Parts: sequence; C-alpha cells; structure tokens
Amino acid sequence: MFSSTAEVRVSANFTAAVVTVSDSCSRGERVDLSGPAVAEALEKFGFQVVRREVESLQIQNLLVLLAKEVPLVVTTGGTGIAPRDVTPEATRAVCDRVLDGVPERMRSEGVKKTPFAALSRGVCGVHGRTLILNLPGSPGGAVESLEVVVELIPHALKLLQGHTEHSWEIKI
Amino acid sequence: MFSSTAEVRVSANFTAAVVTVSDSCSRGERVDLSGPAVAEALEKFGFQVVRREVESLQIQNLLVLLAKEVPLVVTTGGTGIAPRDVTPEATRAVCDRVLDGVPERMRSEGVKKTPFAALSRGVCGVHGRTLILNLPGSPGGAVESLEVVVELIPHALKLLQGHTEHSWEIKI
Amino acid sequence: MFSSTAEVRVSANFTAAVVTVSDSCSRGERVDLSGPAVAEALEKFGFQVVRREVESLQIQNLLVLLAKEVPLVVTTGGTGIAPRDVTPEATRAVCDRVLDGVPERMRSEGVKKTPFAALSRGVCGVHGRTLILNLPGSPGGAVESLEVVVELIPHALKLLQGHTEHSWEIKI
Repeated sequence: MFSSTAEVRVSANFTAAVVTVSDSCSRGERVDLSGPAVAEALEKFGFQVVRREVESLQIQNLLVLLAKEVPLVVTTGGTGIAPRDVTPEATRAVCDRVLDGVPERMRSEGVKKTPFAALSRGVCGVHGRTLILNLPGSPGGAVESLEVVVELIPHALKLLQGHTEHSWEIKI
Repeated sequence: MFSSTAEVRVSANFTAAVVTVSDSCSRGERVDLSGPAVAEALEKFGFQVVRREVESLQIQNLLVLLAKEVPLVVTTGGTGIAPRDVTPEATRAVCDRVLDGVPERMRSEGVKKTPFAALSRGVCGVHGRTLILNLPGSPGGAVESLEVVVELIPHALKLLQGHTEHSWEIKI
Repeated sequence: MFSSTAEVRVSANFTAAVVTVSDSCSRGERVDLSGPAVAEALEKFGFQVVRREVESLQIQNLLVLLAKEVPLVVTTGGTGIAPRDVTPEATRAVCDRVLDGVPERMRSEGVKKTPFAALSRGVCGVHGRTLILNLPGSPGGAVESLEVVVELIPHALKLLQGHTEHSWEIKI
C-alpha cells in the first residue's frame, strides 16, 4: 500500500495504547506475544506506545479510561466467535461512530493469506476524539492487519483533532 | 462495470433528489461543487434531478421529507469522521433496512484510487419505497463513488416499487 | 478457494438445517428449487441435512427453534430489498454476535459474476452455539454464495463448541 514507512512516520507524532485482551495473559498463565508485536510495529511507524493487558470482561471499562488519555487505542484479541470474544461488542458500545471500511480492508487483505480472516469481527470506531481499532489475537494476524490500515491512522487522528479537509482529495 | 451509459439509461425514468450536506455551503460561505457534479452525473444516466442544500444537523428531517416525494435521494457530504459528519447516522436512523453491500462496493473500488476511501462512512438504505445513498463530500469522490453503483439503482428502484424477480438471476 | 471437497469433508460431521424462506413456496404455489440445491451442496461437503420451508414472517421464530436442535442453520430467500424480505432483520434480531466478514466475502465474490450481488443483504451470525447463515433466494446465487464460505463453516462450528485456537494461524 505504501512504499516505505517514512511516509507514514512523517505525519505521526501520537501516543497509542496497545491493549492485549486475553484472560490467560492477564492472569499470567500465558506470555503475551501479540501486544509486544503490535507495539513494535506502531513504534516503527513513529508512535509512542504504552501497553496494557486486560481480561475480556474488563475491556469496555478500560477503553473508556484510555480514551481520556490517548488519541489511539489498538486492541489485540477477543475478536473471534467464542463466547468470551467480546472485544467488538465492547468497542461498538463505547464508540460514537463506527468506521466499517477499516475492518473491511483488513479482512479483504487478510483473506488473501487465509480465508479464516473472514471470521474476524474486529471493529474500528471513534470515542470522543480517540480512534479505537480492534486487531485479531494472533501476533501474525494482528501485525498484518495493522499494516493494512496503518497509513490511514495519522490522517484519521488529525481529522479527529479538527482538521477537516476532504480525505478523498489527498493524493498518495 | 458497464460498457456505456445507454444500458443504464434504458431502465431509468426516475426523479432523484441530490442533497449537499454542508454547513458552509448552506450558509453561503462556500460554493457547492459536489451537488452540481452529482446532479450532472445522474442526469447523464437519465434521472430527473432536483437539488437541495442543508446544514448537517437538518439532514435527518430533510431525508424524511424528500422520501415522501422522490424514489431516490442521493446525499453528498458529512460521511467523514469529524464531529459534524452525521449523514450516516441520520440515514441509518430513518432507514427501515440497510444495504451494506452498496457502500462496501464504493469503498472497495475507491481504495484502488486512494486508501482514504476506507474512512468513508456512507450508508445506503431504504426508507419506505425510497432509496437513500450517501456519497462522500468531495466532487471527485462523490461522482466516482456514484459511478461504481449507479447501474444498481434502476433495478433497486423497480424492486422497491414491487417487482420481485431475483436480482441474482439478472444477466449483465 | 480450496482444491477439493475432501479437505472440507474431513472436518465436517455436523447436522445443518436448510430453511427456504418463501411465501409462495410455503403456501405450495411454487416449487422450491433453492432449498434442495443448498441441501445437496451441503451434503456434498459431508453435512447431514434437514429441510424446512417457512413464510417470511415466521422465519424469526423458526430460527430460534432450529438453533436449539442443530449447530448450523442455512436460510435461502428473503435477503432482497422488497418489503417482505425480512430474513436479515430476523437473523440479526436473534443473533448474539454478527460476523460481517462472511456476507462481505459472499458479496465481493458475487459481484465478479453480477453487480446485483451487492444488493444482497444476507447476514451471518451466532445464536448460542449455532451458526446462522443467510443465502440469496435464487438457486444459483444461493449455491454460489455458499461455496464461497463453506470452508469456514467446520472451523467456525468447532470454535462455537469450545475449541479456541486462533483461526488466523490455521494454514490452508
């Protein structure tokens, strides 16, 4: 989608919270690989990153708290179809507006690698002036999904801070 | 998608309302370029067109009023992620049923030109027997998005007027 | 998407209910071709199939009843935009969680054959531990749509029964 990370880095000067949603990780029963992988990818694109781990039933509260502090919250985990996968519902519940096109892009690129990407239920939306993005729970799936849409994020964050030029007219 | 405008024109004999959703245009502070561009494109496909300008907070009321008068309402503007971008929410609120596949098509074609098309939150839905379609706010984005789905409109309008053949069996 | 039916068959040992949603079929005024076509396709992939016919206004009740009995309910019909097309609304109403990526896939493949696939409003979701999948009403559209996503179904059904491996890491 873009030829180098440099183009994205130029516009990025934001703090992102990376949240691992996992009952086993938050209880210390499993080592979290996805959170660090997503954090590393965001740092590569110029973001300052803070990390959190949370069990699935606490994600909604944490999203609201983090949205008061940072302009970007990226979650990994809890986007599947098992009963404890509630990250999309929690995200939708706290978002004023939802951006269907962002997970649509992640899935349409994801299915080129594995058809199971179509089962990912991640949501992207806006709470106040904070962008919230759900990524899948596996390290590979999370980073690949992020890379599909990372170039959109600096522009989206600027719009949320009050810049209002038509994004359609931006040339890549 | 289709070889000439003639094929679409054949089926089209409908009146469309084109609504520019823009606070600055409706206050006369900016000249509306998108509304005329969308109107011209629809006329080229054989539609009769009436035009309206409205500020963002009045769009929901206007959609309901126009849906009593015309079988097709096309909006341009207010589909982004800034706080005053409420066209998708207004459209969803007045629609009995939503057609997710239509904005999905506009975005999946749009991202071939610019990745920022993924941020467009436009909705397509049905209020009573009227089809409502949200286009982006820039003249280029609006017309290009319309062109992606315009061939679907005459068929959709016929279905809404009571024709019930399976659309999947129509051959192009 | 997959090289042979054998790969899907291996994992499949489930009962599916195929429901034809059609006022004219359920009243015996028209012979149902889609239900048998979908049933045959599912049997080819190793599913046990039971069939039902129902008028559109009874589909919601039937979905709840069938979800108590079988892990997979596949509907055909009622996904269009005519007033009696209420299968998507009924499905959404009974589902705890919705899988947007599944109809997204069916439509994005469907538009390669006919642009009118974009008008299909079918939903895929989960009620309890049962997966519900809406297909279009025409025999061709129904079977072609099913074939796009059938490889996902055994994996989804296993996840719903409590297996929790990350689907993104499954190699095809």
